[in-house]
Amino acid sequence: MGTAEQLKQFMEPQSIAIIGASRSTGEGSYNVLENLLGYGYQGKVYPVNPNANEILGVKTYSKVGELPERVDLAIVSLPRSLVPGVVKECVDEGISAMTIVTQGFGDADDDEGKRLQEEIDRLVEGRGVRVLGPNTFGTANAHMNFSSSFIKTKMAELPVGLICQTGAFFVGFGDLKLLGKGVDVGDACDVDAADALEYFEQDEETKVIALHVEGVRDGRRFLRVVSRVAKKKPIVALKTGRSKSAARAVQSHTGALAGRDEVWDTALRSSGVIRTTDIEDFCDAIMAFCVLPRMRGRRVGITTYTGGFGIMGVDACERCGLELAELSPATVGGLSALSPPWLAVGNPLDIWPGNMISGHPLSQMEEAAVRSLLADPKVDAVLCIFAAYKPALHFELRRMVEEAAESHPEKPVVFYIYGPFYEEVKKGLEATGRTRVFSSFDRAACALGHVASYSEFALKR
Amino acid sequence: MGTAEQLKQFMEPQSIAIIGASRSTGEGSYNVLENLLGYGYQGKVYPVNPNANEILGVKTYSKVGELPERVDLAIVSLPRSLVPGVVKECVDEGISAMTIVTQGFGDADDDEGKRLQEEIDRLVEGRGVRVLGPNTFGTANAHMNFSSSFIKTKMAELPVGLICQTGAFFVGFGDLKLLGKGVDVGDACDVDAADALEYFEQDEETKVIALHVEGVRDGRRFLRVVSRVAKKKPIVALKTGRSKSAARAVQSHTGALAGRDEVWDTALRSSGVIRTTDIEDFCDAIMAFCVLPRMRGRRVGITTYTGGFGIMGVDACERCGLELAELSPATVGGLSALSPPWLAVGNPLDIWPGNMISGHPLSQMEEAAVRSLLADPKVDAVLCIFAAYKPALHFELRRMVEEAAESHPEKPVVFYIYGPFYEEVKKGLEATGRTRVFSSFDRAACALGHVASYSEFALKR
Repeated sequence: MGTAEQLKQFMEPQSIAIIGASRSTGEGSYNVLENLLGYGYQGKVYPVNPNANEILGVKTYSKVGELPERVDLAIVSLPRSLVPGVVKECVDEGISAMTIVTQGFGDADDDEGKRLQEEIDRLVEGRGVRVLGPNTFGTANAHMNFSSSFIKTKMAELPVGLICQTGAFFVGFGDLKLLGKGVDVGDACDVDAADALEYFEQDEETKVIALHVEGVRDGRRFLRVVSRVAKKKPIVALKTGRSKSAARAVQSHTGALAGRDEVWDTALRSSGVIRTTDIEDFCDAIMAFCVLPRMRGRRVGITTYTGGFGIMGVDACERCGLELAELSPATVGGLSALSPPWLAVGNPLDIWPGNMISGHPLSQMEEAAVRSLLADPKVDAVLCIFAAYKPALHFELRRMVEEAAESHPEKPVVFYIYGPFYEEVKKGLEATGRTRVFSSFDRAACALGHVASYSEFALKR
Repeated sequence: MGTAEQLKQFMEPQSIAIIGASRSTGEGSYNVLENLLGYGYQGKVYPVNPNANEILGVKTYSKVGELPERVDLAIVSLPRSLVPGVVKECVDEGISAMTIVTQGFGDADDDEGKRLQEEIDRLVEGRGVRVLGPNTFGTANAHMNFSSSFIKTKMAELPVGLICQTGAFFVGFGDLKLLGKGVDVGDACDVDAADALEYFEQDEETKVIALHVEGVRDGRRFLRVVSRVAKKKPIVALKTGRSKSAARAVQSHTGALAGRDEVWDTALRSSGVIRTTDIEDFCDAIMAFCVLPRMRGRRVGITTYTGGFGIMGVDACERCGLELAELSPATVGGLSALSPPWLAVGNPLDIWPGNMISGHPLSQMEEAAVRSLLADPKVDAVLCIFAAYKPALHFELRRMVEEAAESHPEKPVVFYIYGPFYEEVKKGLEATGRTRVFSSFDRAACALGHVASYSEFALKR
C-alpha cells in the first residue's frame, strides 16, 4: 500500500475507535465523541472506556480486543504511561492506523517521554502500521464531517489540504475556516509532512496545500516530495522557528529540529513553494489560491476612491513584488473622457473626481474603471480601493466582480476596503467566490504577489 | 497670534459658514450641513447659497457679506473657478480661517489650477489669513461633534490628533475611529503638517499624534517642529509615496514632493518619530500608544495555549525588535509547580499541559501564568496567545487584565487571539481600556515594538 493510500485511513476513515473516550460531556469536557456527533459524522464510532457501558447513547467497549470490527483508525487519548500497552493491543488486532493525541513523548523534557516513544516505535516496526502524533489533534475532513480533535473544529468544504504541527489551526480564526482537510503531524514520530503531502498530491478534493512546519527529520525526502508536489498544486508554507530562541522552543514543542532559516528559505523558494511570514499572510495566501486565477504577469492596475490611498496601494504593490501597470493609451483616453479635464489620468486611477462631475453613483464609475483596466493588455490584475460608506454597497459591486470573472477569467480582481461597513461589504463580495477583500494594502498586495509568484513558477515549467 | 492659536479656529470653531452649501439631502448628497446636524455640533452654522432661503430648517445667506457675524471658519465648497472670488469676500469680511474643499488647484494637471492657486495665494498674502487645503476634507473634532467633511466622519473622543493628506481617514476603518481630532492638510497651500503639529503639541486633549504624510514643502521647518514635538508626545507616522512610481502619484495627488525615502526614514527615526509601514500597522500603533504604558525594556514574556503558536509569537517578537525574556529561576520554579513534570517550563510558557493535569479552567491557569510573568523583573511586557473558543471568555480574562494594569502599570499586556469568538473576546477585552487584541502575531509584536522604541527614546532624554 502506498503512502497516499495508507493516509486515507486517517483522512477518510469509515470506522474509528476512540480509545480513552471521555464520560464527561458539555462545555470544557473536550469530548471527541460528542464533537463527532455534533458534526454529523456518518462513519462507525466505537468508544473504548472500561468504566462505561455507553457514552451519549453510543455503546462503549471495555478494550480494543472487544471491538466488533477492525476499524480504519484508532484515536488514542490516555495518560502517556498507558499508551504503549494500547498500541500493542491495536497492532495485535490488526489496526493499521493510530492517532496518538497524548502529549509528553518526543516533545517531553524527561527521559521517560523518550523511552515511551521508543517503546511505541518498536511495537509498530515492521507491522505495516502508521502512527500519527503523538501530541496531535489528529485529522479532520470537512467533506465527511469528521475531526478527531478534542476541541471543536471549524470546518468548511474548501479545496484546502492543511498540514500543521499544532492543532490550533483546527480551531479556526474568527470567520476563517481553513479545513478542507487537515492533518496535525504533532511530534511526527512516523507520519510526517512529506507523507501528508503525498496524500494531498493525489487527493482530488484538494487544490491548495497549506503547510505549517516547524522542522522535519528527513530533510532530503521532504524536499524531494515538496518539489514534486509543488509542480502540481500550489503549496503555501508557514515555516516557523526562525531565530535561535524560536528554534529552542521548537525543540521543546515537537522535538523537531528547526534548521537554519536561510537554508529553509532557499530550499522552499527553489521548489516553487510560496513562503509566507505570518499567520494572516498564510491564511490570506491560502484563500487567494482557492479563489483567484493564475496571473499572466505582475502588472497591477489600481482604482481608488482617494489619491492618498492609491499611493499606499502603490507602496504595497512594490513592497510585495508587483509592478504598477503602465496603461495603454486607449485606456487612458477612455478613462480621461470620464474624468474632469484637469485630472492627470493614470495608474492609480482616482475615480472620485470623475464621479463628482458625472453625478454617477460611485460604483458605476468604479465599474467603468475596472472594465477599462481589465480590457488593457498591459494589466494582469486589478486592486480596487473602495470605501464601504454604506451597508448595501456590495450588491452593486457584486455584479461587477462576477462580470469581471466572466469576461477576464485570467485576471484577479481584489479589494482593499475601508469605512464603517467593512465587514458587511467584505462578506457580500467574498460570497461571489471570485474575489478577496482585505483590510490592509500590504495584505492585499502580498496575497496577489503570492499568486503572481506561483503563476510565474507554474508558467516556467 | 501664534500658529497653535490660529489653528484653533479650524479645530475648535465656535461658528462656521458653509459656502456652497448643498440643497440636496439624504444618501449620496454629501451635505456638510446635514452631517453637522447629525453629529450634534453646538456651534453656529451659517449656510451660504444664493439659490435657497433655508436648508434643513437652517436660514441660508446669499453671500458672505450678509453673514451676521465674523465666523471662526469658512468652509468653501464651490467649483474651482468661483473659489478665488469667495476667498476675496471672506478676506474682506475679516474671516481669518478658510477651508477650501474643492479639488483641482495645485493637485491639478493643468495650468488653470496652478493659476487659480496663485490667485488665492495673492489674495490672502499679508492679511493674517490661514487657508487649509485646497483638496481637503478639512478638520474634525470629536470633543465638539464637529467635522467639515462632506462624507460622514467616524469620530470618538480619543486622545488622538490625526494629521493626514487624505480625507479617507475621516471615514474610519471597520470598527476603528481614529478621531479624536483630525486635520486633512490636502494640497497644503498654507496650513501644513508642521502647523498642525504645533497645534497638537499644545492641545491638552491630544496624547498621541498620528501623522500621515506624502511630502512637505518646507522640509527644514517640518523637521525642526517634528523633533521638538516628538519629545513631548509620541508621533506615529505613515510616510507614503516610497518608490519612484508612488512619488509620481503623490505629485498628481497633492502636488507635494515625496522626497527620497531613505532621507525621510533617517530624519523621522532620529527625531524619535515612530515610522509604520502600512495602514494596519499605523492604526495598531496609534491605539497601542493610547492604551498601553511605556515599557522599561524590550523583554517579552509569552503565554500560549499551544506550543506551535508560541513559536510564532517568538518569531514575530524578534522580527519586530523585541527580545524573548529569560525568566528568573523563581518564575520558572513557580510555573513548574503548575505544569506536568515532563514539561520544560520556559518562555514561551505553554499553559495547556498544566491545565490538562490540574483540571483548572484555562483562564485560571492563564491568570496564574500572567501574574508570575509580570512579577518577574526580567519581563517588560506580556504577550498572551489565547483561543477564543467560547463567547464569554473575556469576562474571565477582563479581571486579569484589570488586575495586571493595577499591579504592574509599567508593563503592557497584549493578546493574540484566534478561534471562532475572536470578535467578541476582542471587544470585551479592549473595553477595559487597558489592552489591545490582535489577529496576527506580527501585528501584536509590532505594536509592542513601537511602544518599546518610543519608550527607549523618551527614557534617553
